[in-house]
Amino acid sequence: MPRPKDDLTRRSFLRKAPGTLAAAQALGALAAKAGAQQVPEPPGKKLGWAIVGLGSLAINQILPAFAKSEKSRVVAFVSGHPDKARKLALRYGVPEKAIYDYQGYDALKNNTEVDVVYVVLPNSMHAEYTIRALKAGKHVLCEKPMANTPADCQAMIDAAKQAGRKLMVAYRCRYEPYNQEMIRMAREQELGPVKVIVADHGFSIGDPTQWRLKKDMAGGGSMMDIGIYSLQAARYVTGEEPVEVAAMSYTTPGDERFKEVEEATDFQLRFPSGVLANCTSSYGYSGQNRYRVITTKGWFELEPATSYTGLRMRVRRGNAIEERSLSVRDHFAAEMDHLSECVMDGKEPLTPGEEGLRDMKLIMAVYEAAKTGRTIKV
Amino acid sequence: MPRPKDDLTRRSFLRKAPGTLAAAQALGALAAKAGAQQVPEPPGKKLGWAIVGLGSLAINQILPAFAKSEKSRVVAFVSGHPDKARKLALRYGVPEKAIYDYQGYDALKNNTEVDVVYVVLPNSMHAEYTIRALKAGKHVLCEKPMANTPADCQAMIDAAKQAGRKLMVAYRCRYEPYNQEMIRMAREQELGPVKVIVADHGFSIGDPTQWRLKKDMAGGGSMMDIGIYSLQAARYVTGEEPVEVAAMSYTTPGDERFKEVEEATDFQLRFPSGVLANCTSSYGYSGQNRYRVITTKGWFELEPATSYTGLRMRVRRGNAIEERSLSVRDHFAAEMDHLSECVMDGKEPLTPGEEGLRDMKLIMAVYEAAKTGRTIKV
Repeated sequence: MPRPKDDLTRRSFLRKAPGTLAAAQALGALAAKAGAQQVPEPPGKKLGWAIVGLGSLAINQILPAFAKSEKSRVVAFVSGHPDKARKLALRYGVPEKAIYDYQGYDALKNNTEVDVVYVVLPNSMHAEYTIRALKAGKHVLCEKPMANTPADCQAMIDAAKQAGRKLMVAYRCRYEPYNQEMIRMAREQELGPVKVIVADHGFSIGDPTQWRLKKDMAGGGSMMDIGIYSLQAARYVTGEEPVEVAAMSYTTPGDERFKEVEEATDFQLRFPSGVLANCTSSYGYSGQNRYRVITTKGWFELEPATSYTGLRMRVRRGNAIEERSLSVRDHFAAEMDHLSECVMDGKEPLTPGEEGLRDMKLIMAVYEAAKTGRTIKV
Repeated sequence: MPRPKDDLTRRSFLRKAPGTLAAAQALGALAAKAGAQQVPEPPGKKLGWAIVGLGSLAINQILPAFAKSEKSRVVAFVSGHPDKARKLALRYGVPEKAIYDYQGYDALKNNTEVDVVYVVLPNSMHAEYTIRALKAGKHVLCEKPMANTPADCQAMIDAAKQAGRKLMVAYRCRYEPYNQEMIRMAREQELGPVKVIVADHGFSIGDPTQWRLKKDMAGGGSMMDIGIYSLQAARYVTGEEPVEVAAMSYTTPGDERFKEVEEATDFQLRFPSGVLANCTSSYGYSGQNRYRVITTKGWFELEPATSYTGLRMRVRRGNAIEERSLSVRDHFAAEMDHLSECVMDGKEPLTPGEEGLRDMKLIMAVYEAAKTGRTIKV
C-alpha cells in the first residue's frame, strides 16, 4: 500500500534534518483536519471598531483580519485620504457617513456604532489620538511602540483611567499560538530553567523619506520600531523585568536613510533570576526575525518569530531537533477579539497601557546605555 | 525508473525546508565521489611531533588525526601517566624511549626525531611548557586559550623569536573548509557588506572538580574556554580588530561548579568598519555552537560551527535558504600539517602567537567591561 504523501515527506525530512522531527506535529495535523471540516458558527455579539490611519498595515493586515474575527467588526474609518477611505469603505461595508478625517476625529463620540478605536498612526501621533478617542468615550487599541516617550505613555494610561475605558497596546505576538507556546515552555521549564535568550529583529529599510526615519515622528530608529520585538520576547518569555541594560548603536556615515535616527542598536539585558538576553535590531541588515531560548537541557526557537504568518518552531532536546507545528490564527483577529472580549466582559487586557510604558522606559534605558557606554540599572 | 534515494531525500527536504536547498551541494558530492576512488599518495616528508598532555582531546582527536596527516607524524609523548602513555605508544608506534614525564621534559632537546611540540595542557601550564620547548629548539603548537594573561602570551612570543622557532596557536577552525568558506563569503561580500555577527558558544559543564573550573589553572570561566570561539569567529569573519567591548557576566549563586570562575559571559564588540557582534558564552546552558553573519542582502551561518565534525552551513539569499555542503577535512590534521608546512617552508603560520595575544587582550577587556559595567575601548 503506498504510503501517504505527507508521511513520506515527514520521514524524508527526518533523514535529512540535523536531528529528528517531532511526532508532536499531531496537534497541528488534528487542527488542520478539524479546520477543513468545520463550518464557522454564526457570529455572536461583535463590537464596532474604527480604524485610524489607512496605511499599508491597515490595508494589508488589519482590515482583512475582520473576516476572521469573532467579536470585532469594522464600522468606521479615520483617514486624511477620502478617496482611499471611500474605496475601502465599499469593500468592507463601512457606511460613507462613518468616514472621518482628522479634523472631524472628535465626532467619533457621536457614532454609537464605534466601541473601539484602533490607532494605526505614526508613533508621534499615538498619544494625541489615543487620548482624544478615550475622551470621546471609546476603548483604544494602540499600535506599538505605544508612544515616543514614557511621559506620553503615562498620559495615555491616565486618560484611560479617567475615561473608564480600556487601553491596550497592539503586541500581537502575545495573542498567537507560537509565541504563546514559547512562553509556556519557558515558564513550565519544559527543558529546564531558561539561561539565555538570543533575539534578532530587523530589516533593510527602504524609502528614505518615510516617517519611520524622521526623529520627531518615530521617536528613534531600529530600536523603537523593530528592536521592541526582541525586547518584548525577552520579557514575555521570562515573565520578568530587566534590572540592567547595556547597548551599542551604529549608523553608517553618509547613509541618507539615517540622518535622524539610528540604523542599529544591539542590547543586553539582565533579569532578576539571572537570565541574560542578547538582542540585535537593525534597519541596515537583511531581514532577521527570530529568537532562541536556551535552557539547561536544550533550546527552543522561532524563526520567523514575529512575522504576520509562517512562524516556525524548532526544539532541541538532547541530540534531536524537532519541528513543532501548531494551529495558526490570524494575529490581528486574535488581538482585536481579545480587546473586544475584555470590553464585553470587563476584564483587563493582557497587554494594557502599562505594558507599553514598561517597554518605553526600557527603550530609553537602552538608548542611554548606548550613548553613555555604561550599563544602566533600571 | 525509480528515482535514486539521495535525490528523493533531497527533494523531500526541499518541500519541508524553510527555503530551498542549494544546488551547491555539487562540490561536496564530487569530493565524496573522488574520495571513494582515490588511493592516498605515499607520504612525502613528515615532521615529528611530540604530544604533551594525554587527556581526552589528545586521545580522542589529536592522535587519531595523524592517520590523516600528510606532513606530520607522532614520535613522542609527554605524560604524567606512564601506563596510559605506554598503551598509546603501542597503538601509535611511538618508541618507549620517546615517552617523557614532566620531570624529563627538557630532554626532548636531545630527541632529534621531534621537530614540533603540541602543548595540550591546562591553560596555566601553556606558557611554561611552550617556552621550555622553544628553548629546547622545538617548534610549538599551543592549545587555546594561549595562556592566562597577556604577559604570558608575550613571553611565549618573545621566547619563540629568541629561539628562532615557530609558535602557533591551535585555532583549528581557521584550517577547516566551513569556517574558511564563511570568511571568504564575508570578505568577498557575496551577500553584500557584513553588518552584524551573532555567535553563541557554550555547554553545560560537568565534573565540578575539573581544571577548567579552577581559576588558577583555567584563568577564567566560560569566556576563556568557549567564549573565545565566538570572539575568534567575529574577528576572522570581519578580518578586523574590535575597538569597543561591552559585557555582562552571570554565575548561579550556590552552584558548586562555579566557586572560582564565571558561569556565563555575554559580550558585544564594535569593529572599525561599523560591524557589531553580539556573542554569548556559557558553562551553564545546553550546547550552543553557532554563528550567523548578517549582511545587507542575506545571512550565512554555521550550526554546528566549531564542533570537531558535522558542521552545517545555511545561506539565506532573498527568500531562499540554501544548505551548502563542503568536502570535510580533519581539523587537527589540517592544523598540524599547516604548522609542519610552515616549518618546512620557513613561512609564518596563519595563527601565530600574536593571534593568541590579541584574543587574550580582548578577553581581559571583556572581563573588565563585565566587572565595571562600562564599554571598554581597546
